[in-house]
Amino acid sequence: MTLPTLLVLDADPPPRLGRLTGRVRVEHADASTLAGRLPSADVLLVWDFTSHAVREAWPGEGPRPRWVHTASAGVDHLLCPELAASDTVVTNARGVFDQPIAEYVAALVLAFAKDLPRTLELQRERTWRHRESRRLAGTRACVVGSGPIGRAIVRTLDALGVTTALVGRAAGDGVHGPEDLDRLLARADWVVAAAPLTDGTRGMFDAHRFAVMQPSAYFVNVGRGQLVVEEALVRALRERVIAGAALDVFASEPLPGDSPLWEVPGLVVSPHMSGDTVGWRDELGAQFVELFELWEAGRPLVNVVDKQRGYVPGH
Amino acid sequence: MTLPTLLVLDADPPPRLGRLTGRVRVEHADASTLAGRLPSADVLLVWDFTSHAVREAWPGEGPRPRWVHTASAGVDHLLCPELAASDTVVTNARGVFDQPIAEYVAALVLAFAKDLPRTLELQRERTWRHRESRRLAGTRACVVGSGPIGRAIVRTLDALGVTTALVGRAAGDGVHGPEDLDRLLARADWVVAAAPLTDGTRGMFDAHRFAVMQPSAYFVNVGRGQLVVEEALVRALRERVIAGAALDVFASEPLPGDSPLWEVPGLVVSPHMSGDTVGWRDELGAQFVELFELWEAGRPLVNVVDKQRGYVPGH
Repeated sequence: MTLPTLLVLDADPPPRLGRLTGRVRVEHADASTLAGRLPSADVLLVWDFTSHAVREAWPGEGPRPRWVHTASAGVDHLLCPELAASDTVVTNARGVFDQPIAEYVAALVLAFAKDLPRTLELQRERTWRHRESRRLAGTRACVVGSGPIGRAIVRTLDALGVTTALVGRAAGDGVHGPEDLDRLLARADWVVAAAPLTDGTRGMFDAHRFAVMQPSAYFVNVGRGQLVVEEALVRALRERVIAGAALDVFASEPLPGDSPLWEVPGLVVSPHMSGDTVGWRDELGAQFVELFELWEAGRPLVNVVDKQRGYVPGH
Repeated sequence: MTLPTLLVLDADPPPRLGRLTGRVRVEHADASTLAGRLPSADVLLVWDFTSHAVREAWPGEGPRPRWVHTASAGVDHLLCPELAASDTVVTNARGVFDQPIAEYVAALVLAFAKDLPRTLELQRERTWRHRESRRLAGTRACVVGSGPIGRAIVRTLDALGVTTALVGRAAGDGVHGPEDLDRLLARADWVVAAAPLTDGTRGMFDAHRFAVMQPSAYFVNVGRGQLVVEEALVRALRERVIAGAALDVFASEPLPGDSPLWEVPGLVVSPHMSGDTVGWRDELGAQFVELFELWEAGRPLVNVVDKQRGYVPGH
């Protein structure tokens, strides 16, 4: 019996794969070797989810893995027209990041409400300056992205007494459609971007959207950097069109040291870490092993990405 | 008919007192004039709750206000043996600060869980450094102080999935007694001080208590500065006995510019602002007016402080 070949896009072996010993032949690839190894792989595990190597390597001719799993919620870094058009099944890490990202959003929203960044600045200056801060309960949030991450954010903010509105691709089932977005943005104290990056969402937070928001509003992006027109956000912050923002994701990652974003007043920059709580790699490894066992048994996979839409439909 | 005299300890008139126009004669006092004006006052409103003037002015002989209200939750700044032994009723601002302080604690706990202070430091250095952070849900908190503020903190942390234990002066009704404190501290990820300052709580967070905590634990004080032996906390942080702390209250306020506390690694210093959300002065003014109307009608006051214990009993 020939063992199936699992090709791992990463230098280091993921945790928890030991469980598959004797059931699979594991090979590794990096950006330079991926194209050459794709033809002989049955399964591709995109463990280095910061890499865009799949999108570059896939278009070549020839046999391709029947299944690609990415250890991330977003799939924008690997979907190319050729992969989307192929029979290959793509799955993602749906579920692993929901609660961590929701907590991260709550942390940033509360930090803004309580003026914590300013408190830390004043502490460095050894300055005692009492300020009034905001009560979070009773404020309004607009969460854009109605997948499990957006829903977890809504649950967490709800639990803190925030009135939330969830905006998705289409209205229904407690979700607002895009036609309500501007109206909801105009009354939100907190705007959270947690949508997948697709042709429909790319650049959706542009100058117009920031102009619609209240001058007291804060914007938090935990989705993908390209949801935001970064220059428009910078201008909105510099001109106080909105009160502040937190970006955990960027059009270019890692954010270059010479990016102007590091020093925009009112902007908190974090290094794409919102979902990554202690143990996350183990969880991602265990999740892949579970999926592998379904695949091995010839059973239907879960977390299957709709490659036309660019995310896992349903919730 | 002689109007009762309301003596306000503060230079500025509190908001909302206009409602009492024609029903009370309002006078103002400061630390230097308070002792001289106490004898002719029927009611004393301690609006400047940072002042210790009452404790200094009260001991003199002679007539004294029958009712003292303080626009604060704590009463340690005004209770002296002579006031405690007198017939004068003391009331406080119970209720106004509960939810704001609970949110403030949640903000600090989440900031620590998500390593936000470090993120802001790295941003200043223009350094992209991914770290794993902590998942808040499933962690354990020990909240010391079982009054309405402590209970609001418990409710808010509970809503975020934290397992909480509440410690009060005596066990019962879901509250742990002091005999459980060390055991609870030893397993807590987050320790929150929200107790009134009394002879029983002064200096309770000392070297022993920090030593009992886990090296990964964070300590947050929103009660009174003197609950903590500050030198012991500084040592615990410098020697990494605990992971970090946030102090909103201090033995000496405002914290002097040359205090070593400003620069202790892992310590967040804020200027006694945890309860002070936009509108708080209006709320405090309205609360006093409500109490005044009870007093004027000869009805029993609420929020009456047990002057022996140093807080309003019950919850």
